[in-house]
Amino acid sequence: MFEVLKTEGRARRGVFTCPHGTAQTPVFMNVGTQGAIKGAVSAHDLREIGCQIELSNTYHLHLRPGDGVVKELGGLHRFMDWDGPMLTDSGGFQVFSLSGLRKITEEGVTFASHIDGRRIFMGPEESMSIQSNLGSDIAMAFDECIENPAPRDYVQRSCDRTARWLERCVAEHRRLSALPGCVNPGQLLFGINQGGTYPDIRVAHMEQIAAQPCDGFAIGGLAVGEPTEVMYEIIDAVEPHMPADRPRYLMGVGTPSNIIEAVARGVDFFDCVMPARNARHGKLFTWHGTLNIKNEKFKLDRRPIDPDCQCPVCRSFSRAYLRHLFVAGEMLAMRLAVLHNLYFYNELMARIRQALDEGRFAAFRTEHSGRLENVSEL
Amino acid sequence: MFEVLKTEGRARRGVFTCPHGTAQTPVFMNVGTQGAIKGAVSAHDLREIGCQIELSNTYHLHLRPGDGVVKELGGLHRFMDWDGPMLTDSGGFQVFSLSGLRKITEEGVTFASHIDGRRIFMGPEESMSIQSNLGSDIAMAFDECIENPAPRDYVQRSCDRTARWLERCVAEHRRLSALPGCVNPGQLLFGINQGGTYPDIRVAHMEQIAAQPCDGFAIGGLAVGEPTEVMYEIIDAVEPHMPADRPRYLMGVGTPSNIIEAVARGVDFFDCVMPARNARHGKLFTWHGTLNIKNEKFKLDRRPIDPDCQCPVCRSFSRAYLRHLFVAGEMLAMRLAVLHNLYFYNELMARIRQALDEGRFAAFRTEHSGRLENVSEL
Repeated sequence: MFEVLKTEGRARRGVFTCPHGTAQTPVFMNVGTQGAIKGAVSAHDLREIGCQIELSNTYHLHLRPGDGVVKELGGLHRFMDWDGPMLTDSGGFQVFSLSGLRKITEEGVTFASHIDGRRIFMGPEESMSIQSNLGSDIAMAFDECIENPAPRDYVQRSCDRTARWLERCVAEHRRLSALPGCVNPGQLLFGINQGGTYPDIRVAHMEQIAAQPCDGFAIGGLAVGEPTEVMYEIIDAVEPHMPADRPRYLMGVGTPSNIIEAVARGVDFFDCVMPARNARHGKLFTWHGTLNIKNEKFKLDRRPIDPDCQCPVCRSFSRAYLRHLFVAGEMLAMRLAVLHNLYFYNELMARIRQALDEGRFAAFRTEHSGRLENVSEL
Repeated sequence: MFEVLKTEGRARRGVFTCPHGTAQTPVFMNVGTQGAIKGAVSAHDLREIGCQIELSNTYHLHLRPGDGVVKELGGLHRFMDWDGPMLTDSGGFQVFSLSGLRKITEEGVTFASHIDGRRIFMGPEESMSIQSNLGSDIAMAFDECIENPAPRDYVQRSCDRTARWLERCVAEHRRLSALPGCVNPGQLLFGINQGGTYPDIRVAHMEQIAAQPCDGFAIGGLAVGEPTEVMYEIIDAVEPHMPADRPRYLMGVGTPSNIIEAVARGVDFFDCVMPARNARHGKLFTWHGTLNIKNEKFKLDRRPIDPDCQCPVCRSFSRAYLRHLFVAGEMLAMRLAVLHNLYFYNELMARIRQALDEGRFAAFRTEHSGRLENVSEL
């Protein structure tokens, strides 16, 4: 299921296998929130830009079109025509970040839909049921994602509850996967570490959940308000307590440098909406730094976005054309920008893996970390 | 340049050649107004959906990014990465339909940009210059497009002016094409017939412009307010006076039935924004009639949009998925819908050509004309 092929320091080069195939790690998962990638990008396009794992959102798909609909249509793989590895989040993060008034009890969370205000209840069993209906390859445990900073006593109580929720997730996941008509009986389950910015709570919680029979473990509740250095300190604290034989997933992170630094700290899986969201605003990544393609200075620029990029956009279109599409308000602008930025992230991971394969990740980190986010001089 | 291979009644099966290649006629040109097809569709996608000729808009590209910019970047073919045949309209239609206050004189038209209100002058020479800078394969003569109905004396005066403008277009087009650094020295020029809904004015104007050395002739100023039957009557009246050895283009038309009926009346070229615009609103064409994909009844429909369609969308995605994308507000909805509808139109033309090749266009017309626009029972 997961094999570490090689290490360099704490960084790991691995291979992960799930019902819909194999992913080389470290890996960046490409986000298709509602069963489509924002910016008019389809699952077919993902194949062309080097995506290994697609990630969809439980909360969104539960509300629309409904996980029952997706199940009846054969599961999310068939629905969106993606036959590769797929992860669904637990819905927890969106329940806490997107929905209106909510109430947390031991049972779960009652919240108001961000679409129509309808009151909805979601607890560990509901989250497992939705993800089972979607039929993803990796289900995430239902957790409470706390904003940083939060009071210590609240974080402690929340973590205790999230640990109890994980036990219920494990039991329900096992039950659902054994039911006849289950969309993806081989679905895996990842647990999620919480604990805010308190290293001791993080470690205790990690030790608690590591005892559960999960197929991987995530660090959640980071990149939600705390300084970057605090994020790295938390990873440093938690990582030694994560089972070495299972993949480690840093949720919702981050910039290219965040990813390089987290790989150096032993993380294997990543996801983030940032590359696609930045793209839709014209902010593009290159190996020479970022650029805002809407800038007047690109009006007559014949070069591709990144002369060192082999993506389908850079192979065909100029900066001048991209800029024109943005200025003219053409939807194609967003599509091409998203394709480029996601390709860049997938290629970043490929180069990280290659550096690990060749035993020169430390040099790669020195060369690129802290630099790829700077404004390009090109 | 244009060869009629076969006829059936007045319908013509032909082959058209221009600097960037060959098109089999009758042909439907796919509209990429601002150098991109609305709905996040690129020139690369056009190749996959059977497009033979791309059409861009002189007025829009003159305003943004500016035809000087496009010329400096090597012309519109390179700018948008389309290496097939391309037609640019004259700007006339948009000057009269999109822009604010305008003033027509013998010299040309002064109008206000719909983007920023800037006052702009465009006459025959300006239109030729812009289209020369864009480097399309077919330039359209600058004309006045009159709404229907219009007073007879105005239509007569306008047509006389449009005829004089054509002479200036021919002269300027010849001059520009011979200049060093011309983007596309082999660019062709089509004249445009006007005359509103007055058959005698139409015929007289057609005879006048047929004397000019144009590479093809268009019927303009139809589908702008008059009943469909009047449109057919005008084509019937004008067609016998159009040179038989040059292509005939019915501008801005139309529904599948309009196209079938116009082919039956001897028309070779078509363009229309309708298939793409309808697509963006969820109205999709099939060989069994149209459907509104947003309809609740498609929520669990596993079938492709059209079971008889081989387009990239129908080969992979269900109606239920398309409906979900529209309801969820995903941009991908528009892209997939536009790809399907344009493919349908290109395939409609392919089937018309095949029927002509096989001498059964009359039967094809009986089977399909007046039916493809109806709401599907499927």
